[in-house]
Amino acid sequence: MRIVEEAAAAAAEQVVTPWEVSAPEGGIDYDKLVDRFGCQRLDAALVDRISRVTLRPPHRFLRRGIFFAHRDLNKILDIYEAGEKFYLYTGRGPSSEALHLGHLIPFMFTKYLQDAFKVPLIIQLTDDEKFLWKNLSIPECKRLARENAKDIIACGFDIERTFIFSDFSYIGGPFYENMLEVSNRVTFNNLKGNFGLSPEDHIGKISFPPVQAVPSFTSSFPHLFPGKDQLSCLIPCAIDQDPYFRMTRDVAPKIGFQKPSLIESRFFLALQGEGTKMSASDPNSAIYVTDSCKQIKAKVDKYAFSGGQDSIELHRELGANIDVDVPIKYLNFFLEDDDELEHIKKIHFPCWKLKQIMHYETLSYPL
Amino acid sequence: MRIVEEAAAAAAEQVVTPWEVSAPEGGIDYDKLVDRFGCQRLDAALVDRISRVTLRPPHRFLRRGIFFAHRDLNKILDIYEAGEKFYLYTGRGPSSEALHLGHLIPFMFTKYLQDAFKVPLIIQLTDDEKFLWKNLSIPECKRLARENAKDIIACGFDIERTFIFSDFSYIGGPFYENMLEVSNRVTFNNLKGNFGLSPEDHIGKISFPPVQAVPSFTSSFPHLFPGKDQLSCLIPCAIDQDPYFRMTRDVAPKIGFQKPSLIESRFFLALQGEGTKMSASDPNSAIYVTDSCKQIKAKVDKYAFSGGQDSIELHRELGANIDVDVPIKYLNFFLEDDDELEHIKKIHFPCWKLKQIMHYETLSYPL
Repeated sequence: MRIVEEAAAAAAEQVVTPWEVSAPEGGIDYDKLVDRFGCQRLDAALVDRISRVTLRPPHRFLRRGIFFAHRDLNKILDIYEAGEKFYLYTGRGPSSEALHLGHLIPFMFTKYLQDAFKVPLIIQLTDDEKFLWKNLSIPECKRLARENAKDIIACGFDIERTFIFSDFSYIGGPFYENMLEVSNRVTFNNLKGNFGLSPEDHIGKISFPPVQAVPSFTSSFPHLFPGKDQLSCLIPCAIDQDPYFRMTRDVAPKIGFQKPSLIESRFFLALQGEGTKMSASDPNSAIYVTDSCKQIKAKVDKYAFSGGQDSIELHRELGANIDVDVPIKYLNFFLEDDDELEHIKKIHFPCWKLKQIMHYETLSYPL
Repeated sequence: MRIVEEAAAAAAEQVVTPWEVSAPEGGIDYDKLVDRFGCQRLDAALVDRISRVTLRPPHRFLRRGIFFAHRDLNKILDIYEAGEKFYLYTGRGPSSEALHLGHLIPFMFTKYLQDAFKVPLIIQLTDDEKFLWKNLSIPECKRLARENAKDIIACGFDIERTFIFSDFSYIGGPFYENMLEVSNRVTFNNLKGNFGLSPEDHIGKISFPPVQAVPSFTSSFPHLFPGKDQLSCLIPCAIDQDPYFRMTRDVAPKIGFQKPSLIESRFFLALQGEGTKMSASDPNSAIYVTDSCKQIKAKVDKYAFSGGQDSIELHRELGANIDVDVPIKYLNFFLEDDDELEHIKKIHFPCWKLKQIMHYETLSYPL
């Protein structure tokens, strides 16, 4: 999952599939996406409810509309309020040596959810998917999964409540049985449009979607959830993963399982700005968790799309155009303090602040 | 594998896929099939060579052209003559409680090959395939696999050299890795024609062919063949399985493995005669290894298509039409003695003889 293709920024239509995110100038139209996918908007009332239920202030990703859409999130909150259990499921397609900042978003948010709800967490590393989509060998995909697992572990999940697995090492048994239960209810024609597949695609790609579907069902993990086939699942992910879980929710009742609930984020911008998301396959578009402070500074200086004005004088007078300024957008993701964020927007030098927090933060990773 | 669909005996064109065998009146045109599939005819010279190399008379299935086609069988004989190793791979799709006579053909022949060459044997039970094609639950498919394994074991394979597994219990690890190596090299369009698949088919069917392909590679069984990734494979099967192994042979060199060799049989006729093969889903078309002598007699009396003449007098004068007579065709499969077979053809009462040998044979199963 979470694969990113080079964006066709000048495309006339926005394209969002699990393997391609591209938008015409002006960036992704998230409203359009919510309507097309048929998910719900995560409004202020629901953010308030999360806060009330968890007895803690809402995460900045909720305050700032970074997680902005959902499916049946209310059901999960009902379950939690009734004192019942649920679990979290998220994942990563290991296509790069190290995670970049965009990859951290779902994991940072998942950590907050795990802390707030005290629930089990399943993390799937889809090394098989990367083999099917990227020009990498199986041993290389397995190695990247292992490397990425280290970055994910560093986010600080509850080690008593977290299960991380790679598909190549875990698929088989009840997990494989559930894969076929799903495969049996999805035709190639059902998949085609939502996943952007064609009859010229190899059958590995056509077979893959059930692999990402079945961690939504506890019976895929009998050793973790013995006798609990009906535990509800909440999936934090970027909205490009919605096609997988639309399919999963469609199939779930047909095979006697609960539909998973979703909480979905916007994309993390490439350094180059609107119209795509940060891509692991383009090192100049991404800041990696392994980049040194010096490298981060150089990348921000050289590549970060700036909303700055043409001269210092003009900039002092008008301020940066914060609608397109990449540093301010990154601060929106990473700077916890709302007042400080507003202040930085006003003092007009978000780029400098970004470099400063990146400097401290990479020293004390996780962010 | 080895699924049989109801035959459309009146079809204008013969249809042979792994899941459907049907032919217009007059039965399957095997010559046409060999040409269309592009395999080779197993001629008298090659039968002689097998006999010479194995130092034993050719099996009656070879003498009588029941195994009639092959791919690269000479390569296997070269290997054997050079004192090198190979292994056998065959299988069964467990769709019925018990095996019927048609199912026994590849196993009887495989036992002969294992005895003659003293080689390891892999037997795959494709319980996953039956789940994908038949209206059966996963537990039921797993149960049928277990039941069928008993019938297969009763054929008397070398227990030191035989590995039987079901897909639901074995798929994972290196086997799954090889499945994806194959999936990665086959498009939906490649499969469509050979396997009779459409975009309206569910993706389980589209994903399945690699599952039957990869037992052709020893690296799918690292615990059986440690460090032997390049052992050659010979697959005895009915010719409707050819599409799987045509695909496998096409992919093998692209992923660094040997192409498997094949030795392929005709179909075992339904009791009703030409135009189809014995089908486990129609109990009246099939004699099961669990049928009692009384049941066999009743089935042969009631359903076996007879080449008998209209009156006893005419029958004594002209004899049975042995080109269409089902009992004589069954004897052709099961009666070892060539002279006796010729004699029965002349005395014109194959049906009586068939009942007689079935009587003795089911008492001393395996046939």
